[in-house]
Amino acid sequence: MSNQTQIRLAGSGGQGMIMAGVILAEAAILDDKIAIQSQSYGPEARGGASKAEVIISNEEIDFPKVIEPDLVLSLTQEATMKYGNSLKEGGLLIIDEDILLPEGFESSRVIKVPILRTAKENVGRAIVANIVAVGFIAEFTQLVSRESVEKAVLGRVPKGTEPMNKKALSEGYALAQSVK
Amino acid sequence: MSNQTQIRLAGSGGQGMIMAGVILAEAAILDDKIAIQSQSYGPEARGGASKAEVIISNEEIDFPKVIEPDLVLSLTQEATMKYGNSLKEGGLLIIDEDILLPEGFESSRVIKVPILRTAKENVGRAIVANIVAVGFIAEFTQLVSRESVEKAVLGRVPKGTEPMNKKALSEGYALAQSVK
Repeated sequence: MSNQTQIRLAGSGGQGMIMAGVILAEAAILDDKIAIQSQSYGPEARGGASKAEVIISNEEIDFPKVIEPDLVLSLTQEATMKYGNSLKEGGLLIIDEDILLPEGFESSRVIKVPILRTAKENVGRAIVANIVAVGFIAEFTQLVSRESVEKAVLGRVPKGTEPMNKKALSEGYALAQSVK
Repeated sequence: MSNQTQIRLAGSGGQGMIMAGVILAEAAILDDKIAIQSQSYGPEARGGASKAEVIISNEEIDFPKVIEPDLVLSLTQEATMKYGNSLKEGGLLIIDEDILLPEGFESSRVIKVPILRTAKENVGRAIVANIVAVGFIAEFTQLVSRESVEKAVLGRVPKGTEPMNKKALSEGYALAQSVK
């Protein structure tokens, strides 16, 4: 893997994947890295699936668009079908546990993880699934330090929700430790 | 101006400029355009100023990064000093009314607009300044339809805050009409 990692976060419109991308990017810059976070919207952007992308790098980023992600994390079936199929060779597809993959996807490395269930059952709110996902990616990839991720999360979530989001982040870390 | 418009939104970290960029991009795709919304973070991203960028186009976007914006809107002095100085020739700089520009900036077209004051006094919450800014840009540039902007705003703001944000949007439209 080069100095540059391309991550795509996919889910339904209301699942906060843009926020997850922003948090990962902000954690990266707290770690003195360079980051670009983006959403591209084309004609395919209609419907319920949405994606957000992050590039994290140790040096300047020449072409600021994710072409072949190193890692795709997807929370829904529709988002997986739409955005889970253009990974770099050897890239990693992380999908929520209930998602079913058609045959073509088998070439990628795939991990199924109970992100939504963890948010619902262990934190009590499905809405923090995006923060569980951030914790999972941070721990699994080791791209950003835990200190910076925590700071970035607390800087972005609504006032009053900090404890819930800290818990969600810890759950994401724990999930990644359990599948490593 | 080409088919493609590059917009930069600058402010302090908590002012919601990323959200404003996301809303403009989502309004554009509701209008059947193509859009990219992004944040680039480099070493300069430390400190209080932050920026978000949007490219709105009628055709595919080749290079998805804002180089020389057609329009910069900035809400703070610091953000203006950092991000207000690389406009396209003939580009437009929109700054909040209290911002002071040093000499070098005089080459750009500059408009001063009371965005923060409008949010505070006419809507009652400074936090909706970003939505006032969205309304201002939408009306001033005519890049996106009002119907789509409203839909995009209502799809992004927290539940329960819809009336306040609709009011903020209208105030932004009215401000743009008053300076046109």
